[in-house]
Amino acid sequence: MIKQLREQILSEAIVVNNTMVKVDGFLNNRLNIDLIQQMGHVFAEHFKDKKIDLILTIEASGIALAMMAGQELKVPVLFAKKGNNSLHQDNIYTTIVHSATKNIDTRIYVSKDYLKKDMNVLIIDDFLAKGNAVLGLINLVKQAQAQCVGVGIAIEKGFDEGGTLLRNQGIDLVSCAIIERIENGKVILKNE
Amino acid sequence: MIKQLREQILSEAIVVNNTMVKVDGFLNNRLNIDLIQQMGHVFAEHFKDKKIDLILTIEASGIALAMMAGQELKVPVLFAKKGNNSLHQDNIYTTIVHSATKNIDTRIYVSKDYLKKDMNVLIIDDFLAKGNAVLGLINLVKQAQAQCVGVGIAIEKGFDEGGTLLRNQGIDLVSCAIIERIENGKVILKNE
Repeated sequence: MIKQLREQILSEAIVVNNTMVKVDGFLNNRLNIDLIQQMGHVFAEHFKDKKIDLILTIEASGIALAMMAGQELKVPVLFAKKGNNSLHQDNIYTTIVHSATKNIDTRIYVSKDYLKKDMNVLIIDDFLAKGNAVLGLINLVKQAQAQCVGVGIAIEKGFDEGGTLLRNQGIDLVSCAIIERIENGKVILKNE
Repeated sequence: MIKQLREQILSEAIVVNNTMVKVDGFLNNRLNIDLIQQMGHVFAEHFKDKKIDLILTIEASGIALAMMAGQELKVPVLFAKKGNNSLHQDNIYTTIVHSATKNIDTRIYVSKDYLKKDMNVLIIDDFLAKGNAVLGLINLVKQAQAQCVGVGIAIEKGFDEGGTLLRNQGIDLVSCAIIERIENGKVILKNE
């Protein structure tokens, strides 16, 4: 566990409601680089023996985290783009991701030029809630006949089903902090 | 000048037409971290004595570059978001940026919580063509009554007016590579 991350969540996260917090001050808009580097280090350490070929994330908030892990693992980062790519339809892997937070469906895609067969892919993202974004990325990895060797997450919502869902599939999931619950406007972190 | 950047532009950039190249393989989609780190170092070295408080960029492609400079300068990165933020209209600085490449207008915005009066702001972005994105970011900085102390760009299109426009305003502009022209499907870099 990263002490500074726990402290920043507890002191700075803005509680929107019992299932949502905003961490724009250090992770989702203004980026605290030292803290993000510590998270990248946690992912790099955990997956250093897995012969990672590529880190896959989603624009925009995942990029900073993925960069820091990629810097340490010395592998490139690929970010899935959001939206409709009307060009090059035959050269992309694509899927739909439902955001429960925003209640919208978003198309994500990556180029076939960069996600290739047999690659060992580490997936990194900022939040894990229901797991839809990560499952979408795993779907792209499978389309490419590559392997997802693990998932690194900054903040997991432990009260949501994503973590259990991924772990039950045998996926090696590392979360830098886990929110146990949100109650009375306060975040309660899982003690680890 | 960064030798590796020159080499990767010359060997990997995909020429779309006489004014457009795509560098998705190392800068705009798959991120070559070593190379991006070298660019971040160029910005950090150039601006290290300017007492930078904040690096400002735009999602998504600017984030990686800004992270690498911020890591070295030990300052946070703020990325302007694209799109319409219907919430918190009173707590954002916003402007419209016209993309000549895509021929669309995009609204960009940052939170007033993170861009503050009197801050020394370094603006970083991936491409400089007509300069609209950078001018949009400078507009946000001015709205906040902060100062833009300089601009760092990965690839400047030397044949487009953005570079001249910014330099004529007295802005300290650093470009890691400058494309002199594109002709017969080939990129010609400015020798520096």
